[in-house]
Amino acid sequence: MKYLNSLLLAIPLSIFLHLSDNSPVLIFLTACLSIIPLSGYMGKATEEIAIYVGPRVGGLLNATFGNAAELIITIFALKAGLLEVVKASITGSIIGNLLLVLGLSMLLGGFKYKTQKFNRAVAVMHTSMLLMAVTGLIIPAVFLNTHSNPAAEPLSLGVAAILMLVYLLSLIFSLHTHKDVFRPSQESSDKPKWSKLKSFTILLIATFFVVIESEFLVAGIEPVVKTLGISELFIGVIVIPIIGNAAEHSTSVIMALKNKMDISLEIAIGSSTQIALFVAPLLVFIGYSMGQPLDFLFTSYELIVIIMATVITAIISMDGRSNWLEGAQLLAAYSIMALAFLFV
Amino acid sequence: MKYLNSLLLAIPLSIFLHLSDNSPVLIFLTACLSIIPLSGYMGKATEEIAIYVGPRVGGLLNATFGNAAELIITIFALKAGLLEVVKASITGSIIGNLLLVLGLSMLLGGFKYKTQKFNRAVAVMHTSMLLMAVTGLIIPAVFLNTHSNPAAEPLSLGVAAILMLVYLLSLIFSLHTHKDVFRPSQESSDKPKWSKLKSFTILLIATFFVVIESEFLVAGIEPVVKTLGISELFIGVIVIPIIGNAAEHSTSVIMALKNKMDISLEIAIGSSTQIALFVAPLLVFIGYSMGQPLDFLFTSYELIVIIMATVITAIISMDGRSNWLEGAQLLAAYSIMALAFLFV
Amino acid sequence: MKYLNSLLLAIPLSIFLHLSDNSPVLIFLTACLSIIPLSGYMGKATEEIAIYVGPRVGGLLNATFGNAAELIITIFALKAGLLEVVKASITGSIIGNLLLVLGLSMLLGGFKYKTQKFNRAVAVMHTSMLLMAVTGLIIPAVFLNTHSNPAAEPLSLGVAAILMLVYLLSLIFSLHTHKDVFRPSQESSDKPKWSKLKSFTILLIATFFVVIESEFLVAGIEPVVKTLGISELFIGVIVIPIIGNAAEHSTSVIMALKNKMDISLEIAIGSSTQIALFVAPLLVFIGYSMGQPLDFLFTSYELIVIIMATVITAIISMDGRSNWLEGAQLLAAYSIMALAFLFV
Repeated sequence: MKYLNSLLLAIPLSIFLHLSDNSPVLIFLTACLSIIPLSGYMGKATEEIAIYVGPRVGGLLNATFGNAAELIITIFALKAGLLEVVKASITGSIIGNLLLVLGLSMLLGGFKYKTQKFNRAVAVMHTSMLLMAVTGLIIPAVFLNTHSNPAAEPLSLGVAAILMLVYLLSLIFSLHTHKDVFRPSQESSDKPKWSKLKSFTILLIATFFVVIESEFLVAGIEPVVKTLGISELFIGVIVIPIIGNAAEHSTSVIMALKNKMDISLEIAIGSSTQIALFVAPLLVFIGYSMGQPLDFLFTSYELIVIIMATVITAIISMDGRSNWLEGAQLLAAYSIMALAFLFV
Repeated sequence: MKYLNSLLLAIPLSIFLHLSDNSPVLIFLTACLSIIPLSGYMGKATEEIAIYVGPRVGGLLNATFGNAAELIITIFALKAGLLEVVKASITGSIIGNLLLVLGLSMLLGGFKYKTQKFNRAVAVMHTSMLLMAVTGLIIPAVFLNTHSNPAAEPLSLGVAAILMLVYLLSLIFSLHTHKDVFRPSQESSDKPKWSKLKSFTILLIATFFVVIESEFLVAGIEPVVKTLGISELFIGVIVIPIIGNAAEHSTSVIMALKNKMDISLEIAIGSSTQIALFVAPLLVFIGYSMGQPLDFLFTSYELIVIIMATVITAIISMDGRSNWLEGAQLLAAYSIMALAFLFV
Repeated sequence: MKYLNSLLLAIPLSIFLHLSDNSPVLIFLTACLSIIPLSGYMGKATEEIAIYVGPRVGGLLNATFGNAAELIITIFALKAGLLEVVKASITGSIIGNLLLVLGLSMLLGGFKYKTQKFNRAVAVMHTSMLLMAVTGLIIPAVFLNTHSNPAAEPLSLGVAAILMLVYLLSLIFSLHTHKDVFRPSQESSDKPKWSKLKSFTILLIATFFVVIESEFLVAGIEPVVKTLGISELFIGVIVIPIIGNAAEHSTSVIMALKNKMDISLEIAIGSSTQIALFVAPLLVFIGYSMGQPLDFLFTSYELIVIIMATVITAIISMDGRSNWLEGAQLLAAYSIMALAFLFV
């Protein structure tokens, strides 16, 4: 977190560059950098507030605002009509959490401990949930093929509604009927470190700046595409998810280094599931209400990486053990995908 | 079963509507309703006879006539040249058993018991068999692409022969060399409730009426497509499998409520496997002998739902435990697929 | 091995046919037959040398030259510009090892022992590695679609570099950091049977003749395609991998008959992984250095069989047990694929 804090300097810098009408590419870069620590503070403050309000509501809070920074960025992208960027960043969040975050956690954790163990039942539960969610994301694209299909809107809305319903059911499951199964993750947050007032103030300030920086970032996408020759798809799949989740990622790695792989897995797989079951459907609803018809018709590139990432994670987490080589495999799969998106 | 019995009233109704040359849509609907209890009686009678003839021949009987009602419907569809409906109903039976039946069983069973356990080894055995069968269904479509390919006939017949051979081997496995592994499912049928004569009489009568109602149903498909605007694909994938398997489905749910998840799993996954390894190849053979060249070239919609349903079931059944949320996930996946077929 | 030795007679025969300018089809067939025992001697000699140089370097040797015969054949095919044959034989080696070799081992081993057990953790480790490698093979084809895409070269080279790096890491893992996990496979080769000199001499002679016969074989591919009407794809996917791996396959079956399923699995899955992570990238590098731009754009036929074979193997090996029916399933999946390649 210490290293991340220095990135906060990017906030005034980006605002200065914006006010002085400087290069949009520079504004884009500083906005990216500033979102990294800001999303960390949003997450930390949410966790603190979650402790004050008790496990039920707290769990709900964490689940709902866990991907808040990313949600804000994508809402701005949606508003700007960058529908492909929005879908790309949904894709990127899923594969980033599954391959990059989990891979880094297993690799670094595996350097310290020869074999790390985790609860296989919980891993299977997360994985099966993810697989179901992925089915929802895949089916519309396979069935409709083209955006101009008049069924794209009703089918996307219908699928979004089903996914959201499953998300609500999963909250009831993990916070109510089977809350004992998820105990390990709650251990780590017993005593609050910040006062209530401090938590709320930080959450408010961090959210305020994330909103501003997200607007800068989204405004910079087109200039960056033109100037640097990187595709929108690459920015959506690789860049946005990394900056939106960086703080969360570092938590996952830290837990792996403490040999608490259950928490690492929950962050990585749980976060992917949340993107697919909650953020993606929410964006579809917001999109249609805004007149920006975001559908679930992902490109075949996106579909294949989501499927492969899900299956690899399922197989790797199925035996309840991890080691550094499994981490390296996940990172290698991520690198291959990132490389491929660079060339599309 | 009590509730299902009242549906028997649909038999005279459908015959009356047919004789009075009434709306084909109404005849279709009454035929659908009447097949639900009839297929139940066929299944029950087969089980009773199976007890009299001993476990070997009985197991063979159950395995062969387990999907008899559906086989009769699809043979009539085949005779009528509705090849796409036949393939759609093969698809629908597989995903219906895996997602709808198993999902409902896990959901309702999970409401009663927090966590239900089942034999992981048996589940893996069924799943691997299913996966192999699914490979057989997928390969021809991926390799040949188009029905006009002259290789469609020999490849489909060859694949059908291989699948049928594996089916025979699996019978030798479960009834002879490894029959002890499958014990749980035979426990439930120790003492016959019907006399031999009663069993045979009921089987004969039920089969007779299933034949009649299947003819009504198939004759009604085209009028229903035109009048109600539902696609043939939807009727094949969703409607026919539900009515053909309804009675069987209720058995699976009842077993789940008795916390006998092993039997639920065997009904759901085993039935899907039987469709893929026995019913589908048999239909291909019957088709070619009838001059109705049914091939294994499923549509890409059908392929993707079969693959996703198989993989989800494999992952969910791999840990030997189930809960209500896993049931809800399977049902959600089924709903998304059904919704998608509605829009194609 | 006794039966295989008689095939050595095919060496002088093929040379005689070649010198007397006989039918290229006959030369092709005798070359095929002669490579079977030769690759066996190459493998055996490598194993013997491996014992002399100690476990580390020995493991490295076995890993690197394990697929030497096949590598030599494919390099000749590469030199002859038969790029599709090269890719087909990469595909064929993967599915051949996973389905044919493992299937035969499980079937024959299962006839002798009712249920055979193996180390699940090791199986999962091999499978996850394979899955990662498969991702590397799949992604370029899905992203680029067509060979004329200018990105085919850099993307293929980049992916090859990543796969090769993971291969090096896996050697560090299995020979250094986690070498205890792989113990069972080293047990079987404690004492050398051949002297050092004998081992080196045999390796040299066998390699020499494999080089000659590979040239005959590759030269015969086109005439065989024209004369017998078998496609290049079929020769690459089915014929070359079977003759290149026959000796290795017999070792796997022998181990299964000795109830050492761990070794069978390691040979079958490990060999597939090695093809994907080491042989395939190496061929890409050699190809570009030769001016034969071998890329990773496999056909959709190849992709689907690689994916299906990997998933089936993953599911079947996940429970740590095997029986004859699982072997039969793998063989059936292989037969269906071989049949399909015959018709393309």
